[in-house]
Amino acid sequence: MYLARVYVTLKPTVNDPQGITVLGGLKSLGFESVSEVRVGKFLEIRLDEGDRQRAESEAKEMCEKLLANPVIEQYSVELVELPE
Amino acid sequence: MYLARVYVTLKPTVNDPQGITVLGGLKSLGFESVSEVRVGKFLEIRLDEGDRQRAESEAKEMCEKLLANPVIEQYSVELVELPE
Repeated sequence: MYLARVYVTLKPTVNDPQGITVLGGLKSLGFESVSEVRVGKFLEIRLDEGDRQRAESEAKEMCEKLLANPVIEQYSVELVELPE
Repeated sequence: MYLARVYVTLKPTVNDPQGITVLGGLKSLGFESVSEVRVGKFLEIRLDEGDRQRAESEAKEMCEKLLANPVIEQYSVELVELPE
């Protein structure tokens, strides 16, 4: 059994209005040292799959098909083995 | 200069309707091995701060004050040193 930790972020060239809003909020709370904020998604997906390679390729396929918009987003996948 | 990578997730006991919806979507796309999905937020925050300890405590304060709802969410912070 594997836990896929999936990070979906906007590509660096894509404008991130949510990040800009959070940046403004932090500044107005007095956090002067913040210079940039980017906001993304983080998903934890539990896979009942014994084979590491198959689990990884499945997680990537999920990103391509549903979790990320490959036009404006990039993703990365980390696999953690879980005790059965 | 530091990059704070912040993960905000719902506490394990809190119901995650967004995750349940994604789980349903993945199942209907034919991903039979998925058994659970939890959705969270992922933020990358650039800090113009030379001191690692100060950068970390600032990032945690940001979570407490703005980025996470401590009643239902938990967060973790990873610091990456950036070249000036």
